[in-house]
Amino acid sequence: MIKVGIIGGSGYTGGELLRLLSLHPGAEAVCITSRKLEGTPVGDVHTHLRGISSLKFESPTISEIARRCDFVFTAVPHGTAMDWVPGLLDEGAKVVDLSADYRLPLDEFEKTYKMKHKAFREAVFGMPELHPEVRGAAFVANPGCYPTGASLAAAPLVEAGLAERVIFDSKSGISGAGIAPSPTSHYPNLAENVVGYKLTTHRHTAEIRQELSRLSPGVKVSFTPHVVPAIRGILTTAHVLVKDEFAGKIPDKTEISKIYQEFYKDAPFVRMVPGVPSLGAVRGSNFCDIGFEVDGSGDRIVVISAIDNLVKGASGQAIQNMNLMMGPGETEGLWFPGGAP
Amino acid sequence: MIKVGIIGGSGYTGGELLRLLSLHPGAEAVCITSRKLEGTPVGDVHTHLRGISSLKFESPTISEIARRCDFVFTAVPHGTAMDWVPGLLDEGAKVVDLSADYRLPLDEFEKTYKMKHKAFREAVFGMPELHPEVRGAAFVANPGCYPTGASLAAAPLVEAGLAERVIFDSKSGISGAGIAPSPTSHYPNLAENVVGYKLTTHRHTAEIRQELSRLSPGVKVSFTPHVVPAIRGILTTAHVLVKDEFAGKIPDKTEISKIYQEFYKDAPFVRMVPGVPSLGAVRGSNFCDIGFEVDGSGDRIVVISAIDNLVKGASGQAIQNMNLMMGPGETEGLWFPGGAP
Amino acid sequence: MIKVGIIGGSGYTGGELLRLLSLHPGAEAVCITSRKLEGTPVGDVHTHLRGISSLKFESPTISEIARRCDFVFTAVPHGTAMDWVPGLLDEGAKVVDLSADYRLPLDEFEKTYKMKHKAFREAVFGMPELHPEVRGAAFVANPGCYPTGASLAAAPLVEAGLAERVIFDSKSGISGAGIAPSPTSHYPNLAENVVGYKLTTHRHTAEIRQELSRLSPGVKVSFTPHVVPAIRGILTTAHVLVKDEFAGKIPDKTEISKIYQEFYKDAPFVRMVPGVPSLGAVRGSNFCDIGFEVDGSGDRIVVISAIDNLVKGASGQAIQNMNLMMGPGETEGLWFPGGAP
Amino acid sequence: MIKVGIIGGSGYTGGELLRLLSLHPGAEAVCITSRKLEGTPVGDVHTHLRGISSLKFESPTISEIARRCDFVFTAVPHGTAMDWVPGLLDEGAKVVDLSADYRLPLDEFEKTYKMKHKAFREAVFGMPELHPEVRGAAFVANPGCYPTGASLAAAPLVEAGLAERVIFDSKSGISGAGIAPSPTSHYPNLAENVVGYKLTTHRHTAEIRQELSRLSPGVKVSFTPHVVPAIRGILTTAHVLVKDEFAGKIPDKTEISKIYQEFYKDAPFVRMVPGVPSLGAVRGSNFCDIGFEVDGSGDRIVVISAIDNLVKGASGQAIQNMNLMMGPGETEGLWFPGGAP
Repeated sequence: MIKVGIIGGSGYTGGELLRLLSLHPGAEAVCITSRKLEGTPVGDVHTHLRGISSLKFESPTISEIARRCDFVFTAVPHGTAMDWVPGLLDEGAKVVDLSADYRLPLDEFEKTYKMKHKAFREAVFGMPELHPEVRGAAFVANPGCYPTGASLAAAPLVEAGLAERVIFDSKSGISGAGIAPSPTSHYPNLAENVVGYKLTTHRHTAEIRQELSRLSPGVKVSFTPHVVPAIRGILTTAHVLVKDEFAGKIPDKTEISKIYQEFYKDAPFVRMVPGVPSLGAVRGSNFCDIGFEVDGSGDRIVVISAIDNLVKGASGQAIQNMNLMMGPGETEGLWFPGGAP
Repeated sequence: MIKVGIIGGSGYTGGELLRLLSLHPGAEAVCITSRKLEGTPVGDVHTHLRGISSLKFESPTISEIARRCDFVFTAVPHGTAMDWVPGLLDEGAKVVDLSADYRLPLDEFEKTYKMKHKAFREAVFGMPELHPEVRGAAFVANPGCYPTGASLAAAPLVEAGLAERVIFDSKSGISGAGIAPSPTSHYPNLAENVVGYKLTTHRHTAEIRQELSRLSPGVKVSFTPHVVPAIRGILTTAHVLVKDEFAGKIPDKTEISKIYQEFYKDAPFVRMVPGVPSLGAVRGSNFCDIGFEVDGSGDRIVVISAIDNLVKGASGQAIQNMNLMMGPGETEGLWFPGGAP
Repeated sequence: MIKVGIIGGSGYTGGELLRLLSLHPGAEAVCITSRKLEGTPVGDVHTHLRGISSLKFESPTISEIARRCDFVFTAVPHGTAMDWVPGLLDEGAKVVDLSADYRLPLDEFEKTYKMKHKAFREAVFGMPELHPEVRGAAFVANPGCYPTGASLAAAPLVEAGLAERVIFDSKSGISGAGIAPSPTSHYPNLAENVVGYKLTTHRHTAEIRQELSRLSPGVKVSFTPHVVPAIRGILTTAHVLVKDEFAGKIPDKTEISKIYQEFYKDAPFVRMVPGVPSLGAVRGSNFCDIGFEVDGSGDRIVVISAIDNLVKGASGQAIQNMNLMMGPGETEGLWFPGGAP
Repeated sequence: MIKVGIIGGSGYTGGELLRLLSLHPGAEAVCITSRKLEGTPVGDVHTHLRGISSLKFESPTISEIARRCDFVFTAVPHGTAMDWVPGLLDEGAKVVDLSADYRLPLDEFEKTYKMKHKAFREAVFGMPELHPEVRGAAFVANPGCYPTGASLAAAPLVEAGLAERVIFDSKSGISGAGIAPSPTSHYPNLAENVVGYKLTTHRHTAEIRQELSRLSPGVKVSFTPHVVPAIRGILTTAHVLVKDEFAGKIPDKTEISKIYQEFYKDAPFVRMVPGVPSLGAVRGSNFCDIGFEVDGSGDRIVVISAIDNLVKGASGQAIQNMNLMMGPGETEGLWFPGGAP
């Protein structure tokens, strides 16, 4: 039984880690931290966990956590994770960091997040479908929610050398913005609305570009996020513009399906679907559903991916990474369906 | 491993049974029927189950089902379940019927549903918190979704002899109306709306009255249902009017809490909560959360219960019943939290 | 052309007053105040008014407002309106106060709102359907949103002497909670949920009781509010329990219809509807739709009213009051349909 | 007073025409048709119009309509409008057709809609911002909802010769799919979801391409629609890829603003907004709000437009066209704000 600690447990990703760990036969949450909630039972904050988890929020030192836990998830904001990660690693814990602090190279991080990094370490980028080296790693940087859905949607076509440019237009549920109320999450502002934001400047663009450039240097990547009236889920529409040499000669639907099937043949959580994926089918689960259509004009392929932003886009993928780092099967504790309808 | 059959699997309760059974360590769905979908993989219809369930819809005879299955859920409409249940029982299967066909005494059924019963049998009413005789039973009638939330909310006060009358005002998600599109489930009609219906004539009233009258003969029961813009969940507001003899002398909050704690001391899925229950905390789970406030006027107690209509209000309670009928622990395969946020 | 001032224009009721006045042929908003937004164009805050209103928020003195305006709406929180109203009245302005400061007698106000009143004045209670004395009045206290829907639903039956007790179970859109984000209005907390609150202690109970007691002294009134996933609207379910003397002898549907038709024969904004009212039909409009069913048990009538909480429940009713106080027809500028779907 | 007839009044656009005409000082609906609802008061179907409109659905001949009406809106499905339009025109009525039957040249129509046209006539394309010749026209084809938001978003940049290609990614409320329930409009399928459909094959693409090619022959146009959980509104994200010659030399924000201001200087219903437009600000109104950001990468401009699909995207634009065809001011009866929140 893996003993698990969660640093920063008052938010949605912390609550979701607890929910998912409660379903995991080989791991157990033994410690969850929150300075401001110290002493409070988790069920008072994450009310769905009442009766399920008997943990209370604690405020231990790094050493204490490392002593009590085999494995630690850091679920604190970017800029804060760097206060925890190096100490935990040095004390021998294996770590998945859910913040942005270790997803990018040092210079790229500092440029993108406009802050000095206090304690850089090399991490494996924790998207197992693109990074088999997660298996056995000691430290993994869990990807952002948008980069997960976006990269998985386009990676096979990019790796196949078809894509000149990919324009990602993402539609996210609001839980990605966190547990704290804000004007954007104010019900009258979001219901019956669609909210585009950071139309050309979202920081997740750097992660998506990093991942796709590894597969095909020079591929152009644009990303525009929107929030829709939904709690969970990200639907990403990837407009893949093919290279001139393929214009009018795009592989047909069957061939493209083969490209995806082959690319994801060892990826249990990616499901290719015949029509257009929907958020309902992945809600609460670790699946990423992908579907596509080829534009008759011959120079565009539209790929749609659907994930639950809190599961495959955050806590579920973190546990998938833990499974690979610690040895149990990749799907252990995660092999369950979404909760449609 | 209990081999389970599901009669009528194309709707929401059938899909939910499959979802829940996929999480159950001691039971396995081996057969799911649908005449019109015969041969179709279940994942094509219940798309969240793609990759999880490899079953196809079948159209077998009663005998075949009884031979292949230890346990059968009938999840067909009322009036149709009666075509299946007696045969299955006679062939030795244990059965939970999710329809209304066996919840009421014969005459009450015929009066309420305005139809002749073709094949009446005695069943245990499958609300384990009120009916310990579910344990070991061979045939159980699973309660309606509204009666589950309503009865659990008021039962302790009714049994304590406090209640003269209970007015139940329920707010349900639309999945209770089924998988088939209708004007009520048409998004523009339901979003940004609340829809009262059958304000004084809903058939579930008979079940609620039956259950509460058992605890306190003569208690008056009224029930008014509404649909709200939500997929899952029923929040029931029980306005409990106390008998004249208690007016101004209602037990205080602590004493009433004790009444509930005592009543539900052996009920793992009922959670008494300090404030007002919310649908988010039970979404996707088999819990029934209950909270209350005493009216300072001294003659009313307002109790609120929250359930997921498809789980504790249907398929989850059905599996809870199966667990008790077949021997594994009551909570087996059901001991997981809801999916908030 | 009536020159109108709005004190406290940064919230929803202020924005809604501007929207409605922009449709009014006989009145014109000439001043809108907000200390913290002074100098900001209203269209920057109420973005739907961009291009429609060229006003900027101001921070004038009471005297300035009284000089520039014939009529003033105070749309500030309770406890603050009392800083404005007496001065405005003394300077000769006619006033509708949308806060709670003048809806109740002095002692009742202080008990209910747990504060000393700084400057009490007598006001007419501004529900024209129950208070014809609004016509020509100089100072009107606009009712709360819940009391409007609740009182209109039950008043005819109460006045007819039928009601022993009325239990109001209301379902409100979240805009009633105001423009400031809060945990309750946080999208993940409200979507797919129903939130009961102040189950027995909401302050609007005093207003409802005041209005119905005027029609039938001694009638018992209980009120329990809920918030539903909707921006606008209040659907109130009034469970009217009839006096023992009428038990089993309730007037039939036709007779009750006559009672309502007669009671509201001079009320242009009350529409009796054949089935169950819905929020969609009144959204954005000043109508109150009412429908009912008689319980076959013979001792309960269930009445449902639907209003838009920001229009008939606040700013629309305020303008209806202004119309009556200032002389134009009651419906002027308000005679338009809701925006369904 | 213009006497107006509406052919096909049982759907959302018919109801919306009635709602908008009830606000119009210079026009009056005198006839609304529906064969299957003949004799039914419109308020029984469009319940928000109860008390506002006293019309009943009729089933008159073309001649009768032409005799009774100065102006006719045909709000029937494509393929049916062609049964009405020529007769009405021949009898002297002025007509705005809200269907797709006359928006495209004959051959383009037949190819796109895969049907023979029974009665082709030349029409003016009814988007007044791009077609000043609407003024005084006798027959206008009202644009589709998606083409309205899409064309208005991109037209200024296309006309300025900046755009090589525009990829439109639209998010629509479900009312665009009509009043009839369907699996897509079934609440459990749409709530908490985003539904991409016809990812590369939506028929409105032809209209968008037609309009933008007029401004810049050869501009490449792609269009992918989605439905979001909203009743009304279309938010269109236009990813404008600039010609190579402008790469890295895109005009700055101020210059682009000037291009838009100039292009829309005579367009009262287009509002350029400083940030990102939102559906709430246009809900129920005829405005099209537009905002944009320039991608720092130097080769993409992201423009977002927001309209109410039933108003500017259908019935409101139809009345705007009527105003221009018949002589009153363009904004008459339409100059009111949306209903936010």
